[in-house]
Amino acid sequence: MSDIEIAQQAQMRPIIDLAGDRLGIPAQHLDPYGHYKAKLSLDYIRSLNDRPDGKLILVTAISPTPAGEGKTTTTVGLGDALNRIGKKAIMCLREPSLGPCFGVKGGAAGGGYAQVVPMEDINLHFTGDFHAIGVAHNLLAAMIDNHITHGNELHIDPRRVQWKRVVDMNDRALRKIVIGMGGPGNGYAREDGFDIVVASEVMAILCLASGIEDLKERLGRIVIGYKADGKTPIYARDLKAHGAMAALLKDAIKPNLVQTLENNLAIIHGGPFANIAHGCNTVMATKTALKLADYVVTEAGFGADLGAEKFIDIKCRMAGLEPAAVVLVATLRALKFHGGVKKEDLNQENLAALETGFANLEKHVRNIQTHYHLPCVVSINHFTFDTEAEIELLRRKCESLGVKVVLAQHWAHGGAGAEDLAHAVADIVDNAPGRHQFVYDGGLSLCEKIEAVATKIYGAGSVSYEGKVREQLNAWNAEYGQFPVCMAKTQMSFSTDATVRGAPTGHNIHIREVRLASGAGFVVAIAGDMMTMPGLPKIPAAEHIDVDGNGRISGLF
Amino acid sequence: MSDIEIAQQAQMRPIIDLAGDRLGIPAQHLDPYGHYKAKLSLDYIRSLNDRPDGKLILVTAISPTPAGEGKTTTTVGLGDALNRIGKKAIMCLREPSLGPCFGVKGGAAGGGYAQVVPMEDINLHFTGDFHAIGVAHNLLAAMIDNHITHGNELHIDPRRVQWKRVVDMNDRALRKIVIGMGGPGNGYAREDGFDIVVASEVMAILCLASGIEDLKERLGRIVIGYKADGKTPIYARDLKAHGAMAALLKDAIKPNLVQTLENNLAIIHGGPFANIAHGCNTVMATKTALKLADYVVTEAGFGADLGAEKFIDIKCRMAGLEPAAVVLVATLRALKFHGGVKKEDLNQENLAALETGFANLEKHVRNIQTHYHLPCVVSINHFTFDTEAEIELLRRKCESLGVKVVLAQHWAHGGAGAEDLAHAVADIVDNAPGRHQFVYDGGLSLCEKIEAVATKIYGAGSVSYEGKVREQLNAWNAEYGQFPVCMAKTQMSFSTDATVRGAPTGHNIHIREVRLASGAGFVVAIAGDMMTMPGLPKIPAAEHIDVDGNGRISGLF
Repeated sequence: MSDIEIAQQAQMRPIIDLAGDRLGIPAQHLDPYGHYKAKLSLDYIRSLNDRPDGKLILVTAISPTPAGEGKTTTTVGLGDALNRIGKKAIMCLREPSLGPCFGVKGGAAGGGYAQVVPMEDINLHFTGDFHAIGVAHNLLAAMIDNHITHGNELHIDPRRVQWKRVVDMNDRALRKIVIGMGGPGNGYAREDGFDIVVASEVMAILCLASGIEDLKERLGRIVIGYKADGKTPIYARDLKAHGAMAALLKDAIKPNLVQTLENNLAIIHGGPFANIAHGCNTVMATKTALKLADYVVTEAGFGADLGAEKFIDIKCRMAGLEPAAVVLVATLRALKFHGGVKKEDLNQENLAALETGFANLEKHVRNIQTHYHLPCVVSINHFTFDTEAEIELLRRKCESLGVKVVLAQHWAHGGAGAEDLAHAVADIVDNAPGRHQFVYDGGLSLCEKIEAVATKIYGAGSVSYEGKVREQLNAWNAEYGQFPVCMAKTQMSFSTDATVRGAPTGHNIHIREVRLASGAGFVVAIAGDMMTMPGLPKIPAAEHIDVDGNGRISGLF
Repeated sequence: MSDIEIAQQAQMRPIIDLAGDRLGIPAQHLDPYGHYKAKLSLDYIRSLNDRPDGKLILVTAISPTPAGEGKTTTTVGLGDALNRIGKKAIMCLREPSLGPCFGVKGGAAGGGYAQVVPMEDINLHFTGDFHAIGVAHNLLAAMIDNHITHGNELHIDPRRVQWKRVVDMNDRALRKIVIGMGGPGNGYAREDGFDIVVASEVMAILCLASGIEDLKERLGRIVIGYKADGKTPIYARDLKAHGAMAALLKDAIKPNLVQTLENNLAIIHGGPFANIAHGCNTVMATKTALKLADYVVTEAGFGADLGAEKFIDIKCRMAGLEPAAVVLVATLRALKFHGGVKKEDLNQENLAALETGFANLEKHVRNIQTHYHLPCVVSINHFTFDTEAEIELLRRKCESLGVKVVLAQHWAHGGAGAEDLAHAVADIVDNAPGRHQFVYDGGLSLCEKIEAVATKIYGAGSVSYEGKVREQLNAWNAEYGQFPVCMAKTQMSFSTDATVRGAPTGHNIHIREVRLASGAGFVVAIAGDMMTMPGLPKIPAAEHIDVDGNGRISGLF
């Protein structure tokens, strides 16, 4: 059965009842969106302040491959399994972006028997959070050009406007555009472009905000561009846009509650890009979940070099979070891919390639142990064509690293398939939880922070900077030196070359461009070409998506 | 108190309880969106099929003036008043567009003590319908350029793509743009533009669709552009976009239930532009309301020459609706304006100007009586500076037309202020309901239809056509001859010159451009410049909109 068919057969419980029975949340503190989705009220979240926190478990992965590793399914499967073995666990996930559902990627609500439901709603509009983010972003954009048109009292240099527009659609034709054409009534012509909504700084801000006041403050701090000197920033607050933007986000800031196929609760909230942003669900969601459950399972974007690093150095640092353990997701197929095997040969046993490819997993494990200073379990998403010999080899290799490896079959069997993983994780969390370290100290300069991540986490030998990038970073040190850095590079490799598999060392990381996300509170360092507006493939998934007269959707995957 | 302050003091009842108590709707057939908004399930709507229909009352107005007439407040006030005098009444309204809330116009959920609530939600994202429409529209746009990029098998002429993009924001800089710049990876450069979401044909389609199947069929029929011959249309179904578009609209098609300040039920659903589209709430909403109540009060856009004409010739014709009576809203201020008084002098008594300006009201009443063949009540939205002499003059003039005039004070007093109006309307509906006529027969040619509206309703003496427009209309007669025409002209005047007040006659209506809305099922005839993307004023309302730490919004009006 396809994911959507499994999801549509789920026996969902009304979310208000489920939240009441399992978490004791009073109905008036839940804003329902249909019968199976609800938002938690801000009052209720505040009322939890004095409760103790549960334990936070981060699910991350080896460097992703085209085959896919299954981080979200593992997060869901582990959460279901923890509940099965008698632990009170909640999952915290990112909201899927709507645009990619119509391209190649499909949805992002888990898969097989490890899914969150209602799958169609979560993948399409959900509770409207991303629409709200898109409109808030575009309001600021409209106010910028409107200000320029009506006399430009702030002296915004139209050539130096950095705030683009956004749409939640894979639409390559909007990447680079010229706006304001057609004569004086339409304003001043200038270059512009659209990003996909998840790439908006408003998304990153919403995900890091501690509440509405903090949200508004951060929105006001957004740098939309510069005056003609190229140095004097213009802020969103100068345009008086931040109040209305926050008003548009008054509901989007409330965490969303849904359930898994096994009727366990999950919070799905926020979903920033994992390259030019930090790639984690909202701070509000994670903090709320920690008050509501003893175990909170959450995920970070891409591999442990990107997602987990940002989770720790950006999200945990800003929010004061303390993860207790890390689950590193891998597949034998992906490890063989890192060992040099071609995509079409991955289903064949290949012990030599597995051993070579293990280097990728090993480097991630060492990073987690040494640099994040956290205990770790390796979870292998099991495929039917994995051989005994391969599994045995992997087990031995992991033992040599002092890390436990568990086979997980939640995709095929739901929570029951991930009980071993749940026991392994609970054992660490209950008996030997970690205390994380940051990869770099907040007091270092921006360049030193970039270099710390590059050398420690990526195994790089050097960092170089394009043109005036280093100068720009040094200039920012005065005002923004305390910001963490958000590294944007390919997720496919420890290097900046997506084709270099395994665990390269000694390579150079070239920082091509840096961007200030002063509302979010980080500096983005871009190594390589980052795509912030995807395109559709020749035959988009949209061609197969349909709905019948009763509103039942098909073809979404 | 401001509208938002009055709205925030409303004693709202939970919508599920209210709908259960008042209409007997079972809770499982209502999808809640928070505690005070809900969508009606399609199953429930189908289950009403065998019930008899209530009576439909259309609220329209004289030609609008900058002072504003108060059509929405009258619709709400009349509905509240009908309930007060013991009638079972529901109101059907259009959803406000989000963009204009940040400009000059403000919200559109009524005003004073005649409002629908929760006002902030209704004016901002509401239940996400407009966001869904925007994304469905933009999915088709992305699929068009994607198709061209990937080989253009359908031979779409990039110069003849007619499907623009949309955003729910007043953003003049997007009116005319060039897309696809930046090299081969971003596709082929071409001219394009953004309309505001309410101007999308998807909006018109949603508002006219009888259900999901009809919606999908109509979406598939959208003409996105032409081949190089300039004649062979390319449809959305050729791109296989209509299934996914309909899937995105599966919830948007369900009517939204809210309440008035007096806890009476209102359905707010859809909101197409009233110039390039037909300007009425959805057919689904109106038909559902007629099954649920004995009296359904609804509104149409602009004045009775535009909104009411389209209500009858487009909406009633397509949906088989039968209005029983019409309420024509006017103010003494607006009548004096039509009589030539300057905006700043409207609060002064001026009997001569009132008598002159009455010509506008008279022409609308005659149209309603003669051409729509419906009984009519004139409702005067009362202002404190209206004088006794003015009111008396108006009363005499109306009597001479054989039409009842009623003073309504719902803005100040809620339903209690509109009881006279309610009695007058109920008297007609109960004792002498009308049977409408169309302005033109469906079998006439497109040009004949345009000419019928122009001469009968606008009092024009002639119709002329720009360049090849008549040729185009004649060419469309073969395939689309059965379509009604959707006239797009200024709402400020019976003529195409916004400054000509009163009731001009013998003028020429020049059709500058025609557009085929083949999914919606009408041909748009444009006389004058129609703005489908508004701009923001020098000081946008957004600057004053704010939200506090508890999510309470201020500054929205």
